[in-house]
Amino acid sequence: MGSDEGRKTIEVCFSPALFADFRNDDAIVVVVDILRATSAIITAFMNGVRRLIPVATLGEARAYKDRGYLVAAERDGIVRDFADFGNSPYNFTREMIENRDIVYSTTNGTHSIMIAKDCYRVVIGGYLNLSALTDHILSEARSVIVLCAGWKNKFNIEDTLFAGALAEEILKNENFTTICDSTHAAIDLWNLARNDVLGYIEKAAQRHRLRKNKLDDVLEYCHTIDLTRCIPVLKDDFLTKLDVS
Amino acid sequence: MGSDEGRKTIEVCFSPALFADFRNDDAIVVVVDILRATSAIITAFMNGVRRLIPVATLGEARAYKDRGYLVAAERDGIVRDFADFGNSPYNFTREMIENRDIVYSTTNGTHSIMIAKDCYRVVIGGYLNLSALTDHILSEARSVIVLCAGWKNKFNIEDTLFAGALAEEILKNENFTTICDSTHAAIDLWNLARNDVLGYIEKAAQRHRLRKNKLDDVLEYCHTIDLTRCIPVLKDDFLTKLDVS
Repeated sequence: MGSDEGRKTIEVCFSPALFADFRNDDAIVVVVDILRATSAIITAFMNGVRRLIPVATLGEARAYKDRGYLVAAERDGIVRDFADFGNSPYNFTREMIENRDIVYSTTNGTHSIMIAKDCYRVVIGGYLNLSALTDHILSEARSVIVLCAGWKNKFNIEDTLFAGALAEEILKNENFTTICDSTHAAIDLWNLARNDVLGYIEKAAQRHRLRKNKLDDVLEYCHTIDLTRCIPVLKDDFLTKLDVS
Repeated sequence: MGSDEGRKTIEVCFSPALFADFRNDDAIVVVVDILRATSAIITAFMNGVRRLIPVATLGEARAYKDRGYLVAAERDGIVRDFADFGNSPYNFTREMIENRDIVYSTTNGTHSIMIAKDCYRVVIGGYLNLSALTDHILSEARSVIVLCAGWKNKFNIEDTLFAGALAEEILKNENFTTICDSTHAAIDLWNLARNDVLGYIEKAAQRHRLRKNKLDDVLEYCHTIDLTRCIPVLKDDFLTKLDVS
């Protein structure tokens, strides 16, 4: 495969529990939790949040609350009683969050952000910033790992479809290649679903969870392509807006 | 979902590294490593092997060799020098193995067998015994986990396609249901691939590894449906032939 020499790779990791076997400290890691953590985080930066501090445990989130921070915290889709809001992107309106710092803890998304933190760069991806993310990755010319947050370490459909959408865009560029079966599968699933993504994800377990908890008003929004050029990026222990000129 | 009450579930686990989150001691686990471990194991029982002893390490395999056992041992597709043969199903001819015990160690397949051993039953699956396996599962009316051996903990395409083929058969029976995203994805990939499986797996990394090592003579054989009614089953620490009447 001499023709692949010098080309960068894209890989898709279907679960944080598999990340140890993908890890590459020189790679850009795109964390994806379409329903709803990364869609919400992108929305927060689109609406002017200053910093977003991801924390793994509810205990940490509560300690920040006691110190006066705005706190978004949920488990299994349910807002915790001490929190200011949960995980719906609709919570992060400009009037609520502009120029403020938010502490953020979710079932799956924040864990994925933290386990990738020693890689070259951790960015937050979703349909909302798909083209901006693609442009950024192509401009950096580094290998990429798309880390799907999944659901409690399990594969999920909605993150996989986005991984396929992103991988397909990246692989249109001849400087990128893949020998990763997950990436091929994600692209094929995306191409099955792309003409009716909301119809396709009717089979997704998370779609049923959200419906049951009456949280499924965000489905169409979370699958809206290119609402913003914002790319949240992890810097030290918080997320901030990537400075792309 | 009241209509699902009492129905058994089928789930697909894409990697042994994810198995802890699927584990259900009452379930039948179908271990799958199409290229080539489980195809080879089914072949061995089809050709009259008595017992097959899966071992995790090459050290254990060598110790059995010193005690006079026939040993199949490979890593990354390469036969180890002390072993009698590697992982090709073509090694397990009747004249070589009939009524004998074989010790068996591979890169991925034997590990998957061992991690499932505390479940209700561990059976070995492949295209070669697809219908026999389906009939057995339906007759048992227990929940099923299809455990894909993958490649060094990573998702692979060829095991996933088989998982989809099996899940589709099982779910035709109204006593079974699934709320597992991996299962839906596997079925959709199987339906993309089924009319030309060998063409589809051209994109699989393992297909390239086998070609590189000149071990790809087994592709068509390993994708042959229903060559046998044999179902290897784990009993204590060895595999034997399931007694199905």
